[in-house]
Amino acid sequence: MFAVEVRDHIMIAHSLPRPVFGPAQGMHGATFVVDAAFFTRDVDENGLAVDIGAATTVLREVLAPLNYQNLDELPMFAGKVTTTEVIAKHVFDQLATAVAGGKLGEGSHRICRLKVTLHESHAARGWYEADL
Amino acid sequence: MFAVEVRDHIMIAHSLPRPVFGPAQGMHGATFVVDAAFFTRDVDENGLAVDIGAATTVLREVLAPLNYQNLDELPMFAGKVTTTEVIAKHVFDQLATAVAGGKLGEGSHRICRLKVTLHESHAARGWYEADL
Amino acid sequence: MFAVEVRDHIMIAHSLPRPVFGPAQGMHGATFVVDAAFFTRDVDENGLAVDIGAATTVLREVLAPLNYQNLDELPMFAGKVTTTEVIAKHVFDQLATAVAGGKLGEGSHRICRLKVTLHESHAARGWYEADL
Amino acid sequence: MFAVEVRDHIMIAHSLPRPVFGPAQGMHGATFVVDAAFFTRDVDENGLAVDIGAATTVLREVLAPLNYQNLDELPMFAGKVTTTEVIAKHVFDQLATAVAGGKLGEGSHRICRLKVTLHESHAARGWYEADL
Amino acid sequence: MFAVEVRDHIMIAHSLPRPVFGPAQGMHGATFVVDAAFFTRDVDENGLAVDIGAATTVLREVLAPLNYQNLDELPMFAGKVTTTEVIAKHVFDQLATAVAGGKLGEGSHRICRLKVTLHESHAARGWYEADL
Amino acid sequence: MFAVEVRDHIMIAHSLPRPVFGPAQGMHGATFVVDAAFFTRDVDENGLAVDIGAATTVLREVLAPLNYQNLDELPMFAGKVTTTEVIAKHVFDQLATAVAGGKLGEGSHRICRLKVTLHESHAARGWYEADL
Repeated sequence: MFAVEVRDHIMIAHSLPRPVFGPAQGMHGATFVVDAAFFTRDVDENGLAVDIGAATTVLREVLAPLNYQNLDELPMFAGKVTTTEVIAKHVFDQLATAVAGGKLGEGSHRICRLKVTLHESHAARGWYEADL
Repeated sequence: MFAVEVRDHIMIAHSLPRPVFGPAQGMHGATFVVDAAFFTRDVDENGLAVDIGAATTVLREVLAPLNYQNLDELPMFAGKVTTTEVIAKHVFDQLATAVAGGKLGEGSHRICRLKVTLHESHAARGWYEADL
Repeated sequence: MFAVEVRDHIMIAHSLPRPVFGPAQGMHGATFVVDAAFFTRDVDENGLAVDIGAATTVLREVLAPLNYQNLDELPMFAGKVTTTEVIAKHVFDQLATAVAGGKLGEGSHRICRLKVTLHESHAARGWYEADL
Repeated sequence: MFAVEVRDHIMIAHSLPRPVFGPAQGMHGATFVVDAAFFTRDVDENGLAVDIGAATTVLREVLAPLNYQNLDELPMFAGKVTTTEVIAKHVFDQLATAVAGGKLGEGSHRICRLKVTLHESHAARGWYEADL
Repeated sequence: MFAVEVRDHIMIAHSLPRPVFGPAQGMHGATFVVDAAFFTRDVDENGLAVDIGAATTVLREVLAPLNYQNLDELPMFAGKVTTTEVIAKHVFDQLATAVAGGKLGEGSHRICRLKVTLHESHAARGWYEADL
Repeated sequence: MFAVEVRDHIMIAHSLPRPVFGPAQGMHGATFVVDAAFFTRDVDENGLAVDIGAATTVLREVLAPLNYQNLDELPMFAGKVTTTEVIAKHVFDQLATAVAGGKLGEGSHRICRLKVTLHESHAARGWYEADL
């Protein structure tokens, strides 16, 4: 299996208003350094699994609606608790839609799996990965 | 698959008294930066795979008996060679016991896989991962 | 010159309500990974510039009132714009007070300089450093 | 599953002479920081999955013919486009040959899987992994 | 002293045609991860030493003529050996010109020192720093 | 000021037998990832502050007597407490001797300052720096 992984980041505010979150129940925030990995079973005649430039562009487009936002106010997260896991799944779903829409170039159809990792600090991270 | 991974570290002495270890046969030591990843197939109604706070606490508790120790003197490693791989497996087993004992909170039963990575320097690391 | 540097982090929300901040004017947030360096001209009879354990404890205490907070609501930042630089200076001032109060142990009087670095992402950081 | 991963790097020139590569079509270059992971199902009586020293040596030997080279001039890449993915696969194949040749020591026969990761910058990487 | 540091990278080919460079005399290449730090003695009424967005933009503009190039063919380096140190000094000079030209915004006049670090691998880096 | 910095590491055992060290009083150990920076005011006609290859070799030679050792048993540290600071100073002194002995090549006489950083974990480091 081949994979290409690119990195970007977002800076967001949110609250986690459930007792289990203790001190994180109130309004606070995070920088999420986001790694998006695109998997393929082979490479094309150009030696590409996925074009890194295209992957970088698509990741930036998917993250743009989240960057510098208060996630509590975004309709896409209404009724949800925006944990690291939930945001990772959201980014995964958006990337999967981009792949299905051919936005990763000619090789989009070869992409068979995605992994989205959110680093919330130097000491903690979460991810979601699944076959497409 | 979702995962949450937390980081801690231990500083230990040990010897690796077999010829295969060459210069590492005598008493020396290591800082192991330890990453523990907890995998789940879904998240709960709070958006959690595993609570990062609980994961951090459990990892610290599992590492505490090793930290600042000479592993050659610990009964738990009697008769064993404490390679990076062996320590990774030991930490894995201790975390698996903690999961089975419900110490990761209400979501403990959802945890289906663990991965324990020990970074022994900027240039080498080892890990053990398996389904529970 | 000797130095000892320890790392911790905070997760905060804030807004930067001035036109120069463009998309960061609204409520958003950040993880700041914080490195605090304590400088001394020599070491004591125990070989210590500063005890790493004491440094870690003092940094955690200084960061605690900021962690998981919305900085817009904290009286200590009233009337200020909480840029990375401003927060670095705030942490510096708090650490300087701790040093002056002897909270870094017997060697507190030897500390002659501090540097506080805030990493706001993998691609940007800011710091404040000065002699005491 | 156990794994041991070691790191080295190469500094190479190459061109990617296909339109899809845009500004990277001309002669340019890269530092590839290379992580090679060797997987085994169990450890031997010395507690070893793979000897880290042997793994480090073999990785260095495999990378030596590439280091400080212009890949466009190497016969081994004639007719190929030397993307990150293609180089990762090349290193994988060379390591697989070394494993098959017993160059990883007595435990070579236990190695059942390899993963080769090439970091081309702080923001992008690619890898190839497969069972042996 | 305050500082703001931003990161970008370039991927270049070059040769170092002097005997002292041994295996690096021929055409090879490097990824340089570049950190540019801008120092000021104080912050403005917006709490800014330097606007991180402006710093990021200026660094990208300064690096653009180098990125994806064969440095041996660039007139700006004619007659020079493009070591890490020489490239760091080149980037420093270009940034200093940008600062003098007011391209870092209203606060350009406050910038009193620059530091430019080029990471050529995980194990080596070089930098140039000086007062303006 | 120019600088070139190279990285290596050592894995050592030691005890810190003074009450101030609390749990670190007994035999334990550390991986120290060591960065050695060599400063010069200008570069030579080859564009070099210091040759990175020579710097890497000298650092390895200086660290070799410490690597895989129990520092409590080394005559060079008799009567000393081998804190991170003390080891940093030791490495600094050894590098300074190498510089004075011309072991950094023709440019040794240009080296005017050294900085030696020891990373003892992902969360703590110490350094010693001084003019030569």
